[in-house]
Amino acid sequence: MELKARLRTHYKYFLNNFQTRWSDNDQYGHVNNAIYYHYYDTIINQYLTTRCSLIPTRSPHIGLCVHSSSDYFRPIEFPATLDLALAVTKLGKSSVTYEIGVFETGKEDVCAVGSFVHVFVESAGRRPVAIEGEIRTGLQQLVVERESDEDKASKL
Amino acid sequence: MELKARLRTHYKYFLNNFQTRWSDNDQYGHVNNAIYYHYYDTIINQYLTTRCSLIPTRSPHIGLCVHSSSDYFRPIEFPATLDLALAVTKLGKSSVTYEIGVFETGKEDVCAVGSFVHVFVESAGRRPVAIEGEIRTGLQQLVVERESDEDKASKL
Amino acid sequence: MELKARLRTHYKYFLNNFQTRWSDNDQYGHVNNAIYYHYYDTIINQYLTTRCSLIPTRSPHIGLCVHSSSDYFRPIEFPATLDLALAVTKLGKSSVTYEIGVFETGKEDVCAVGSFVHVFVESAGRRPVAIEGEIRTGLQQLVVERESDEDKASKL
Amino acid sequence: MELKARLRTHYKYFLNNFQTRWSDNDQYGHVNNAIYYHYYDTIINQYLTTRCSLIPTRSPHIGLCVHSSSDYFRPIEFPATLDLALAVTKLGKSSVTYEIGVFETGKEDVCAVGSFVHVFVESAGRRPVAIEGEIRTGLQQLVVERESDEDKASKL
Repeated sequence: MELKARLRTHYKYFLNNFQTRWSDNDQYGHVNNAIYYHYYDTIINQYLTTRCSLIPTRSPHIGLCVHSSSDYFRPIEFPATLDLALAVTKLGKSSVTYEIGVFETGKEDVCAVGSFVHVFVESAGRRPVAIEGEIRTGLQQLVVERESDEDKASKL
Repeated sequence: MELKARLRTHYKYFLNNFQTRWSDNDQYGHVNNAIYYHYYDTIINQYLTTRCSLIPTRSPHIGLCVHSSSDYFRPIEFPATLDLALAVTKLGKSSVTYEIGVFETGKEDVCAVGSFVHVFVESAGRRPVAIEGEIRTGLQQLVVERESDEDKASKL
Repeated sequence: MELKARLRTHYKYFLNNFQTRWSDNDQYGHVNNAIYYHYYDTIINQYLTTRCSLIPTRSPHIGLCVHSSSDYFRPIEFPATLDLALAVTKLGKSSVTYEIGVFETGKEDVCAVGSFVHVFVESAGRRPVAIEGEIRTGLQQLVVERESDEDKASKL
Repeated sequence: MELKARLRTHYKYFLNNFQTRWSDNDQYGHVNNAIYYHYYDTIINQYLTTRCSLIPTRSPHIGLCVHSSSDYFRPIEFPATLDLALAVTKLGKSSVTYEIGVFETGKEDVCAVGSFVHVFVESAGRRPVAIEGEIRTGLQQLVVERESDEDKASKL
């Protein structure tokens, strides 16, 4: 399935009625491409802190971003409110790959789809650690099946 | 009255459940001081666009910020949600002074109080113009009486 | 002296050729008012970290912003480069008031003047502490005399 | 060649001594992942406006971002200054793919490598247009050969 066909039903967790900001719009009058990554960071960390007991300033393990990407399908303009949608597409031993969908509140077509990879590390030494406990339990609840690239290739 | 005693009842318009963002927190683990001005800009422009028919990219008149200030009373930390509160403390011929209160959702003590002055200008030539029509009508609905500095001085 | 007459000679420390960013411009095609506070934060903390041995993540004392303000005189547009200029207008026991001037590289007229108050606190308990050692020595080097409000009033 | 082995010699245009900002650091004390995209936007648009005569508010054609990605190899901390490096890895009829390298001033190891795709459109109707004139000439000067994914696969 193409990313631009994503629906809300392809995701597991939502941050609804998320208010865009005046300064999100750039001089072309729409939300600047870099701002979407602030949205991705927000829904991921809001989930980790409110649902997985992560306390960024005190937790022994934290998630560091090692890769991210975004595809943009439809422009958004402040003062739109958004429904941010989150899924986990891969949960490894110490890394997790998230997919984020950006929808305008009240509209169906997805505006952008992002991918974001966290590696969990010791907050002190920053060496990779296994994802365990409440964080693993929390992330497992967001896991979805996505057609892999190989699957897509095999269907060509 | 001291600014730090501001209550929600001192304001006329609200943007509730405003989601802070991961990147709002600076390395001291709380919302960075500069970020509050993004909040102020957001509630003011959200009011102007949704209640006063301002269309920033097409309106003949736009508001430019010529002065702003903020006092900070209590730190805020992502992932808190906020109730932003707006009032107009002075409505002149071509300029308007806003006051913004920042409250955490579910808490009573004000976290910060901002002041923000817009001068309305022609979007093309950027010369000051009189505030008229829907914008004046909209702003009048937010006007509140605030003790002036002279009043405060006279009571000393 | 009016703020809009400030010259580079009214300041003591400079961060020259400071590059504006694409996302600094808002949809009116000029640097957004809130962005100036990011500039103020940057020159102040760049001075504290490079000249006063402040290490934000480890220093026992840190500066918290309790008040800030800005006056805007001339718009700036990305991709301009700026000369940020810093002075200390008041150095108290535990607080310091900075003034920041924003100039475009190669131009003389000041674009904006900001004021910013830091209270130094224990990084752990966040209680005010006396400004001492390298931080006081560093800040003293930036102190300038500014006409006080009382002086200005007495000359009316 | 792996992205993390990129050197300054792999790029064609530089924005040196680029000052990071206080608010770029997140609560983990390093530059937030989303901020890198602001850097990418800045070097690309600084090149387009200063070398290719693009005037964002008035040019008939503008570049819209349709895809971006970033890999992160080494953390950066404010107040570091950066050398941003730019190349064009694909120049199509109406789209261009940039690669951006982020280096700390005075250090050799690349900190992050970004990819960014602009589609040029009419600024009015936002329909794709051919990249022509000074913009094409300017972009051609940044073109570099990069091993394609197929090449890499064939060498395995």
